[in-house]
Amino acid sequence: MTTNEAADAVTASPVVIIPAGAVEQHGPGMALATDWVRAERVAELVAAELGGRAVIGPPLPVGVSPHHLAFAGTVTLTTTTFAAVVREYAQSLYRHGWRKVLVITGHGGNNATLTTVAQDLLTTHPDLRFAWTPLTALARDVVSGMRVSEVHGHSGEAETAQMLHLAPHLVHTDRLAAGTTSLDELDPPARLAYDGGHPTLTARYDTISANGVLGDPRRATRDDGRRIIDVVVLRIASFVREWLDA
Amino acid sequence: MTTNEAADAVTASPVVIIPAGAVEQHGPGMALATDWVRAERVAELVAAELGGRAVIGPPLPVGVSPHHLAFAGTVTLTTTTFAAVVREYAQSLYRHGWRKVLVITGHGGNNATLTTVAQDLLTTHPDLRFAWTPLTALARDVVSGMRVSEVHGHSGEAETAQMLHLAPHLVHTDRLAAGTTSLDELDPPARLAYDGGHPTLTARYDTISANGVLGDPRRATRDDGRRIIDVVVLRIASFVREWLDA
Amino acid sequence: MTTNEAADAVTASPVVIIPAGAVEQHGPGMALATDWVRAERVAELVAAELGGRAVIGPPLPVGVSPHHLAFAGTVTLTTTTFAAVVREYAQSLYRHGWRKVLVITGHGGNNATLTTVAQDLLTTHPDLRFAWTPLTALARDVVSGMRVSEVHGHSGEAETAQMLHLAPHLVHTDRLAAGTTSLDELDPPARLAYDGGHPTLTARYDTISANGVLGDPRRATRDDGRRIIDVVVLRIASFVREWLDA
Amino acid sequence: MTTNEAADAVTASPVVIIPAGAVEQHGPGMALATDWVRAERVAELVAAELGGRAVIGPPLPVGVSPHHLAFAGTVTLTTTTFAAVVREYAQSLYRHGWRKVLVITGHGGNNATLTTVAQDLLTTHPDLRFAWTPLTALARDVVSGMRVSEVHGHSGEAETAQMLHLAPHLVHTDRLAAGTTSLDELDPPARLAYDGGHPTLTARYDTISANGVLGDPRRATRDDGRRIIDVVVLRIASFVREWLDA
Amino acid sequence: MTTNEAADAVTASPVVIIPAGAVEQHGPGMALATDWVRAERVAELVAAELGGRAVIGPPLPVGVSPHHLAFAGTVTLTTTTFAAVVREYAQSLYRHGWRKVLVITGHGGNNATLTTVAQDLLTTHPDLRFAWTPLTALARDVVSGMRVSEVHGHSGEAETAQMLHLAPHLVHTDRLAAGTTSLDELDPPARLAYDGGHPTLTARYDTISANGVLGDPRRATRDDGRRIIDVVVLRIASFVREWLDA
Amino acid sequence: MTTNEAADAVTASPVVIIPAGAVEQHGPGMALATDWVRAERVAELVAAELGGRAVIGPPLPVGVSPHHLAFAGTVTLTTTTFAAVVREYAQSLYRHGWRKVLVITGHGGNNATLTTVAQDLLTTHPDLRFAWTPLTALARDVVSGMRVSEVHGHSGEAETAQMLHLAPHLVHTDRLAAGTTSLDELDPPARLAYDGGHPTLTARYDTISANGVLGDPRRATRDDGRRIIDVVVLRIASFVREWLDA
Repeated sequence: MTTNEAADAVTASPVVIIPAGAVEQHGPGMALATDWVRAERVAELVAAELGGRAVIGPPLPVGVSPHHLAFAGTVTLTTTTFAAVVREYAQSLYRHGWRKVLVITGHGGNNATLTTVAQDLLTTHPDLRFAWTPLTALARDVVSGMRVSEVHGHSGEAETAQMLHLAPHLVHTDRLAAGTTSLDELDPPARLAYDGGHPTLTARYDTISANGVLGDPRRATRDDGRRIIDVVVLRIASFVREWLDA
Repeated sequence: MTTNEAADAVTASPVVIIPAGAVEQHGPGMALATDWVRAERVAELVAAELGGRAVIGPPLPVGVSPHHLAFAGTVTLTTTTFAAVVREYAQSLYRHGWRKVLVITGHGGNNATLTTVAQDLLTTHPDLRFAWTPLTALARDVVSGMRVSEVHGHSGEAETAQMLHLAPHLVHTDRLAAGTTSLDELDPPARLAYDGGHPTLTARYDTISANGVLGDPRRATRDDGRRIIDVVVLRIASFVREWLDA
Repeated sequence: MTTNEAADAVTASPVVIIPAGAVEQHGPGMALATDWVRAERVAELVAAELGGRAVIGPPLPVGVSPHHLAFAGTVTLTTTTFAAVVREYAQSLYRHGWRKVLVITGHGGNNATLTTVAQDLLTTHPDLRFAWTPLTALARDVVSGMRVSEVHGHSGEAETAQMLHLAPHLVHTDRLAAGTTSLDELDPPARLAYDGGHPTLTARYDTISANGVLGDPRRATRDDGRRIIDVVVLRIASFVREWLDA
Repeated sequence: MTTNEAADAVTASPVVIIPAGAVEQHGPGMALATDWVRAERVAELVAAELGGRAVIGPPLPVGVSPHHLAFAGTVTLTTTTFAAVVREYAQSLYRHGWRKVLVITGHGGNNATLTTVAQDLLTTHPDLRFAWTPLTALARDVVSGMRVSEVHGHSGEAETAQMLHLAPHLVHTDRLAAGTTSLDELDPPARLAYDGGHPTLTARYDTISANGVLGDPRRATRDDGRRIIDVVVLRIASFVREWLDA
Repeated sequence: MTTNEAADAVTASPVVIIPAGAVEQHGPGMALATDWVRAERVAELVAAELGGRAVIGPPLPVGVSPHHLAFAGTVTLTTTTFAAVVREYAQSLYRHGWRKVLVITGHGGNNATLTTVAQDLLTTHPDLRFAWTPLTALARDVVSGMRVSEVHGHSGEAETAQMLHLAPHLVHTDRLAAGTTSLDELDPPARLAYDGGHPTLTARYDTISANGVLGDPRRATRDDGRRIIDVVVLRIASFVREWLDA
Repeated sequence: MTTNEAADAVTASPVVIIPAGAVEQHGPGMALATDWVRAERVAELVAAELGGRAVIGPPLPVGVSPHHLAFAGTVTLTTTTFAAVVREYAQSLYRHGWRKVLVITGHGGNNATLTTVAQDLLTTHPDLRFAWTPLTALARDVVSGMRVSEVHGHSGEAETAQMLHLAPHLVHTDRLAAGTTSLDELDPPARLAYDGGHPTLTARYDTISANGVLGDPRRATRDDGRRIIDVVVLRIASFVREWLDA
């Protein structure tokens, strides 16, 4: 996209989609950039689905990943810096006239900071609408219909399936290995942290999985990945359409 | 508590509970400090339930409430400042030897920032365990068994019930008034924001309820409040026990 | 106070009083929250004295107490964070229409930061009037008429007396113990720091008093406390009246 | 790259290359992401040239571009935020054991901030070596041998040539248009800012070129682009080899 | 002083004196830099008096002067930035081995920020001793013996007298003019702000004096200035001697 | 200058010159404040040359010098703090009506931060013009005509010459000593850092010169210093004239 097209897009495409990822361990078989790749691909699919009513803005390749720092290659921003980057992207877009920004994050570790940005923008930019969405959580119904381990999640069945569908060249299928797959394998503090309900305890991933994986990625299939992504894209696009019409 | 008792508590009471609230509109019938009062009272009940294994630390009376600023009396911190305060409380307690801090927040607007604090502490204080919990969300099963409006939430049935049980003198029952109670009353953008699922859109409360209330607080009963609080206290205390044993 | 009352108060009660305290050691006999309790109680008495022309805003329970960190239970904010909190309280109140904010601090460690906030607000909010006041320093004449030790101050005769009057249940009279009471007990660096004049040397309290107390709190009487508080309340209220009339 | 490969790379590939770009106008014919694309491609070529002794780290897609904000689509970070991101990338890599980081920036607007990061790291991480390099400036001799306009630079002959070589699909050759090409077209303040010597005056690009272009990109040839890039890659690789041997 | 002499001074001269000033209006007759000049000169006199046991460090020419911004030429730092500069001076000196830093401020507007720096350093640099002192306040007894106006202070009798003694070439005696000299001239809000006791109200100087002067500088004599400075120097030097011996 | 003169200067002297220096080692023979002294003197000469069309604003005595911290007496600001100070000087001057600020820096370590300030001001103060200039770099032609060592630079022939001309009392000619004078004396990493081209490696000076000097200051002559300064002053003044006329 050139600056000329951007100038047109301000009115023709009133929503800017920003893909947010992470550079963090995804077990022995998937790329560090997995979350970013998924966010980018979904952003493109959503934009296509919306037929020109949304454009894709600059990405956030690195996110908030302190819980993965024990694994080599993980790069993290503090929540303060990640928030500043998101805010300044939004401010730049705002200057050009956009009033709707949607961040699609492939990484759950970014969720809380995205919410804080949304909160602070209410005061500083009252006429800017800022939305954000995770990926897999939009397709919980699909995932629960899949054959997943008792313990599953990061780099597990659902995430691997998405990558097999979206970017199979970034999955080393021969290296995929099961991580923590059952509650029995978790020691008590890890179980408390894994639980996910409330109270919430944020834990380093090396304390809940030796290889950084939750679930068994070998069970992942490309078909499941397609099903997840199709639902995710549909639901985000449907949200954006309602948003534009609202 | 004096400094002498604090010195003893570092070993006898290895968990510090910090009650977090908000000073924000709670409709025509409830106090601005409603969230803080509930957090304080639940903290006391949890500490009592734990029989001395936890102490109550300094409160966070004001939280993150930019979405309520259109209503008089609301006081808010930016997410950055709220995070700094929480972090510095935790750092002070850490210096004295505590390694487990639990924030009980009566205000959902604080959730995201509490998570960002938990994330950043993983890097800066790897041996500090930082947990946090909301209140009402812990008793979703109880609330779903109550007679609530189609649209309900802030200052609605469940929150008012809790106050009738915990601090009835802070509820002006004669002034309680229904707010937005059905989806029909929400215009499209408000409906998108109220939805609560993903994608997430953070909205100012004055755009989703004229009097700041979601639901009909007149339906609230003290009994329902007691039931909610009992479950909340039990679940938090049970979490803390597991945490201490883990 | 509900949001409705807050809306009325913006015009009826043009001054907002913010009580500021500290959570810090107050010797073996007084609560960590002593300064906050005194500030809260005096704020209420001043508001009562002013008959509705002032309202009480959210408190600052924790203040700037690095000099007491060697004593268990002390919780401190950095001066930067404390300033940010005060500023954001003031900004929130400003949004609702208030133009006069008065902070009553029960803790001298907050004084300097309150002044820096006042200075910065001159530039950022030129039409906001921000005042602050300590407590005991307003009644120096009363204190000098009391039977105080040669060295006296923190948790000593005057402060204990105030607590005996305002919140006797928070004073363990049986545990009150003399701290440093004479200059002879101070080693040279401690004496330089205690001096209080200029040049000024800020020191950790554990270097000037083994139990954190300056003076002999056992000499404190409830009557002296009442006399101090009466004078303090009168002088603050008188200031506010002049301020409102100015 | 997976976390396993990253773990190996810490010793096998002791230099991490971070490509830094910008999202900013590049005239009517080139993509907003031009600088990022060039930095990414050169990083890959340098890494290839070094045969495994360097790895490519996460990119910095957005840089410091306030001078281009008048043109639609430009997204900028403040220098403070850009510096924070670079610093936190470096800190993450440092944790994993890397001690040499090289930023290759396709955007000259990032140069000053990269230098400030290098300066601050001297104090905070004395054993980390942080280097950075621009692109085109490394091939000044090649550019001066090209047929360039009197005024040339941003989105002009040399930059367009590089893109024709590295990413021809991102150049709309039919839309390429001359910008400011002679000093006569510059009004006095613009001439002072364009001068580039000292004293230095930083100016908004809309004051020195109506279409954001300096020079005539239609003169650019793929061959010139190849020549520039070859020299740039060679010189960076040669620097890294000396660095590794030093 | 060269780096060689600095290396010796770390042990020979264990106190570093930092002169802090302001660039702010000093009425029609005195230089903007008046406070800085006084601080520099007193620092030199104190160092001389101490016979080599103290060295003079880098100055802080600009301070915290938002209250004078209505008068042309005033330059101010925010309290946050002024604090950062002081802290970083202290940290640099600390690295070289100094453990005692004394700031002499010619400007009262810096006092509060200097105290906040002292407080924060207690936590971050527990073995650094940081003291600070004002000037005129050290000689209150001398000033009260002078012929001063009912209202006096900034750019008034005492300050002008000091300049007549220390830097007469910076006083335009022919332009000296009385400012606000009696309480009658102050309107009620100005009187409240001038009062100086507690509660404290910080006010812009243009609301309390039309020409920025408090008092009548024409009454100032060089002799009074000498008397003030002699006392100030003596008292600071005496403090430093005790400090070194403590 | 008094506030009255400042008020006149806003229109009569539309450029404010801010001299920026450093407090850092300048070898065994020159003062720590060398860069500040040169900046101050050149600022005065430029102002004189401009005959009243520029005024001198407050100085920046301390700059960005982390690379010299291994040498006693060096005081440094972080780039963030140095930038904040420059920005706040500029903001204060802006408030009084000035729209052109020129920083003359005697210290190359400040260059990058000055550029970042210029960049950020484009967004926050679009109608403020902010220029900056180094000293010696303006006279490269003169220096190259001097008899300089193969390796020369900091505290070397050109800088010493300037001081011999501008402030001979601050040069201990008897202590001047050669530092690193030939490339042979540099070990490989030092040579890479000294190179000055790109890629750029910022290094601590103690790794490239044992006494902190690059070149042989004993070769410096007062005449060379005069020639350098004359050219520098002329070029800066000429820039300012064009700027004022533009």
